Amino acid sequence: MARLVMKFGGTSVANIERIRNVARHVKREIEAGNQVAVVVSAMAGKTNELVAWCRETSSLYDSREYDAIVASGEQVTSGLLAIALQEMGVPARSWQGWQLPIATDEAHGSARILSVNGDEIVKGFARGEVAVIAGFQGIHEATGRIATLGRGGSDTSAVAVAAGIKADRCDIYTDVDGVYTTDPRIVPKARRLDKIAFEEMLEMASLGAKVLQVRSVEMAMVHKVRTFVRSSFTDPDAPELKTAGDPPGTLICDEEEIVESEVVTGIAFARDEAQVSIRHVPDKPGIAANVFVPLADANINVDMIVQNISAEGFTDITFTVPSTDFERAKAALAGVREEIGYGSVEGATDVVKISIIGIGMRSHAGVAARAFKALSERGINIRAISTSEIKISVLIDAAYTELAVRTLHSVYGLDA
Amino acid sequence: MARLVMKFGGTSVANIERIRNVARHVKREIEAGNQVAVVVSAMAGKTNELVAWCRETSSLYDSREYDAIVASGEQVTSGLLAIALQEMGVPARSWQGWQLPIATDEAHGSARILSVNGDEIVKGFARGEVAVIAGFQGIHEATGRIATLGRGGSDTSAVAVAAGIKADRCDIYTDVDGVYTTDPRIVPKARRLDKIAFEEMLEMASLGAKVLQVRSVEMAMVHKVRTFVRSSFTDPDAPELKTAGDPPGTLICDEEEIVESEVVTGIAFARDEAQVSIRHVPDKPGIAANVFVPLADANINVDMIVQNISAEGFTDITFTVPSTDFERAKAALAGVREEIGYGSVEGATDVVKISIIGIGMRSHAGVAARAFKALSERGINIRAISTSEIKISVLIDAAYTELAVRTLHSVYGLDA
Repeated sequence: MARLVMKFGGTSVANIERIRNVARHVKREIEAGNQVAVVVSAMAGKTNELVAWCRETSSLYDSREYDAIVASGEQVTSGLLAIALQEMGVPARSWQGWQLPIATDEAHGSARILSVNGDEIVKGFARGEVAVIAGFQGIHEATGRIATLGRGGSDTSAVAVAAGIKADRCDIYTDVDGVYTTDPRIVPKARRLDKIAFEEMLEMASLGAKVLQVRSVEMAMVHKVRTFVRSSFTDPDAPELKTAGDPPGTLICDEEEIVESEVVTGIAFARDEAQVSIRHVPDKPGIAANVFVPLADANINVDMIVQNISAEGFTDITFTVPSTDFERAKAALAGVREEIGYGSVEGATDVVKISIIGIGMRSHAGVAARAFKALSERGINIRAISTSEIKISVLIDAAYTELAVRTLHSVYGLDA
Repeated sequence: MARLVMKFGGTSVANIERIRNVARHVKREIEAGNQVAVVVSAMAGKTNELVAWCRETSSLYDSREYDAIVASGEQVTSGLLAIALQEMGVPARSWQGWQLPIATDEAHGSARILSVNGDEIVKGFARGEVAVIAGFQGIHEATGRIATLGRGGSDTSAVAVAAGIKADRCDIYTDVDGVYTTDPRIVPKARRLDKIAFEEMLEMASLGAKVLQVRSVEMAMVHKVRTFVRSSFTDPDAPELKTAGDPPGTLICDEEEIVESEVVTGIAFARDEAQVSIRHVPDKPGIAANVFVPLADANINVDMIVQNISAEGFTDITFTVPSTDFERAKAALAGVREEIGYGSVEGATDVVKISIIGIGMRSHAGVAARAFKALSERGINIRAISTSEIKISVLIDAAYTELAVRTLHSVYGLDA
């Protein structure tokens, strides 16, 4: 017997027929002898409808009212799934965020979960009951108001519930059947990973692999919640899901659980960055602050930063920003041109950041060198490089995205 | 300054434009210096959509889950109206039933309100804030689950909130502009009543005038909540609504507040009754129980009961039941035919119950006699009669409905 959290997103509960399908997935786990808490999103399209009404009512809507309105979507699906389960003979009841409660901070619209009280869920298990929990929402206890976690927050709800009830595993049912070494649409030879370490998944999620919300991976890492990404579109009663072996999917887990760690686990890429280069900057103390404080003041998130050693008292600084902030970044720098005394600002939006991720590179030398050599052999120019303990990122021309990803995927032996 | 509750139904909040219109009504009352709590229904059609999903999921759905699902409709409109008010510069916040709380019993799907805690609403008034309250819902506190009051329950919510905050008046904004002496579609000369006593309105509502839910009138009577029925389709900023005089509408109030009480206040009629007559019943003690206990066991609501004195040891018993229960009532009686030993059961569904209502008839003799005489002069046969202190009901052939209602309306001087 295991204690499971099962999470289903909006497309998996888009209509009553699909909700019944979800109920069959749950029933399968109950029949296998497991205790189950389910976390559900709103029916696909419902959240957008509710958000549109808020915007139509006021362009500057109160985020506390927005939360009360938008949280209704998950309220509906939690009730419907409970009914569908009961109809199949599986005892179940719905729980809203405020009923458990799931306590959040006061950042309405993008609140963070502070704690999940799992007592009622566990009591329900003792009665043989499935808990169906409305995802994406909680309550700010001091004010007693509903708070939502921001789009995609149901993943985070699921992991937080799993931590709150000390679940053996948190199953994220999604429209893909796991986490791949890279995007299979770009590299047909990409293969599904059986396991990936929390730290690696955090990098993958941050760097463009859209399987899971970054925040949910952070929470899984902090609370060591074994999180399993699997497909919601398989037949719930398929024989292979009822055998003792592992079902198809990717387990995100502690690195200690991964026996044979590869040097490189995956290749991620992000197309939504822009490069900004400041030429001929006087190299004196405080110059970095002069550049980046105005950007921070403009609430622009700076990612890669590269500054070379100077020549003749001048240096060049290159960094990346979200491409949506490109023009605002240039404007912010123009405002401090005299103060800094730089030569010119150049930039490019047709760039892509490609990242090589793997816990194994901690203990392996030469991982970066192999990437640089392989890219160079394909004639791909590297505009900037940044590295961390388990990640190497390079900025290149967007035109070379596919070539670079396929090359690196092959170089590190990831091809199926 | 007055303390007001304003209630708006589903058609009044059917879309964002209409919600803005509601906000203008509220703003007018705020600008007149009043403290305002608003009670709203779900957007027209939304409750039906949610109910349909419940039914599609299971024909025997859990009424606790149904309540969680269906209550989401009012949750949405309460938030949207709060946003619309804020947009107009009127401070406002939404309140769900569980937030105040509005405590109910455990009869999910048709719960009764046990109490309304108005503390938070009144605190909001002190901050200059409008309370926007989701109608139709409350919480069963022992289980912490959402409970709904049954269709049309928002009227009851409004009256209960008015009692909870000791409001000076509860304004029910609806698609008619008040309570009429009878249905204006049948009697063009029907006129709007300025005032009607609680007891009279209770009879009118019970007997087919569909302006207000019966339960809300009961609650208004018990808590002496002055309830004002008025139109939601007038221009919120119409000059006549901003003058000191009474706006158009009907005040339901204590009879002491009605200075000149008419003998008869209104004529109501109900087409949805069926007549059942049992012929040749042995007249012995316990015979009424023998007839009506089986009907009660079958959960059939018996309305008028007429039993004449017996002749030669036998009597006839006539009563009415909802026409939807007609066949079931006959079947229940067939099952006890031998036990009772009656001759035959006859019945008719093409009947109408017409009622003459007025507190004044308490102190006036001959009110009933005038009705019987007037109907007789028009050749209308009376099938059965039942009376109470403030009401005379007659059962007649449905074909004579219009003629009878117009005749009585005229006889009692109600024509405009």
